[in-house]
Amino acid sequence: MNFCSNCGSPVIVRVPDGDFVPRHVCDACGTIHYRNPKIVVGCVPIWEDRILICKRGIEPRLGFWTICGGFMENGETLEEGAAREAREEAQVDVEIGSLLVVANIRHAEQVHVFFRARMRTPEFGVTHESLDVKLVTESEIPWSDIAFPSTEFALRHFLADRRAGVEAHHIGEMHRRFG
Amino acid sequence: MNFCSNCGSPVIVRVPDGDFVPRHVCDACGTIHYRNPKIVVGCVPIWEDRILICKRGIEPRLGFWTICGGFMENGETLEEGAAREAREEAQVDVEIGSLLVVANIRHAEQVHVFFRARMRTPEFGVTHESLDVKLVTESEIPWSDIAFPSTEFALRHFLADRRAGVEAHHIGEMHRRFG
Repeated sequence: MNFCSNCGSPVIVRVPDGDFVPRHVCDACGTIHYRNPKIVVGCVPIWEDRILICKRGIEPRLGFWTICGGFMENGETLEEGAAREAREEAQVDVEIGSLLVVANIRHAEQVHVFFRARMRTPEFGVTHESLDVKLVTESEIPWSDIAFPSTEFALRHFLADRRAGVEAHHIGEMHRRFG
Repeated sequence: MNFCSNCGSPVIVRVPDGDFVPRHVCDACGTIHYRNPKIVVGCVPIWEDRILICKRGIEPRLGFWTICGGFMENGETLEEGAAREAREEAQVDVEIGSLLVVANIRHAEQVHVFFRARMRTPEFGVTHESLDVKLVTESEIPWSDIAFPSTEFALRHFLADRRAGVEAHHIGEMHRRFG
């Protein structure tokens, strides 16, 4: 951030009065520009005993497998965002179920919130965000080609809970895996 | 948002290629400025059978009662943010416990995430953010002077779960109450 989005003047970084954290501050118009973590919402869509996974068609982690998910938008709920991302990434119509994962991703300044989901029909398809989309059984999950630590965290907890016959939620912190 | 925070040129609002939502776009440097919901983190701190509540010393809802909470910062986890807000608002040292509430606040473009918490010592105090801080029993909660719908949602579920001897989580949507 170099310029004030309100008045266009250059911003500086300093701790505002009464604050504890350095912020981008505009001394021309007085605006303090706060930057906060973003929410990524997603779901694990299920048809019968199979799980819908997507091969990423965009960076980061292009070509690796993930579950449907993306940045939550203003004006929607977490559940609406998770269902929207499933439509946008895999052309799938889902009913959002119970909370599965809350993952802190400190280095990426993100919180990931993933739900269980039921596919309303068996239809799905590729999109400009997904090179491939498929329904897989537990033994077919490509563990060595999973896109993100939170993807693996969600899938492993989903499967363990399903074997145990429970729908728990799991909170964790994901650490940098690459670079 | 009027100006590009990257290059200082005026921004316009339009749907970028491949997107579905109008964004603030800078045609001078090509930056797309996304705006996403912010996370408010907080907790319900407990000492023995009493709950710590704070009388807000800042707007919005100055003078009304709430639980400790505020905007999550970059570089921290949800749990760290909830503990930090308890220190900043009530000078209290807490151990964050189980997930209590996830509240969608569509009109405010926020998601509130509240945890149960245990006070490590009985010490607490007022701050520049809180006019008053006190430990209350269930019957002493000032229900008619609660600051926000999510505060009431959290307190009511906390109490009901405690009576039932469970620590469940509760996901809900809060609607505009004022104005």
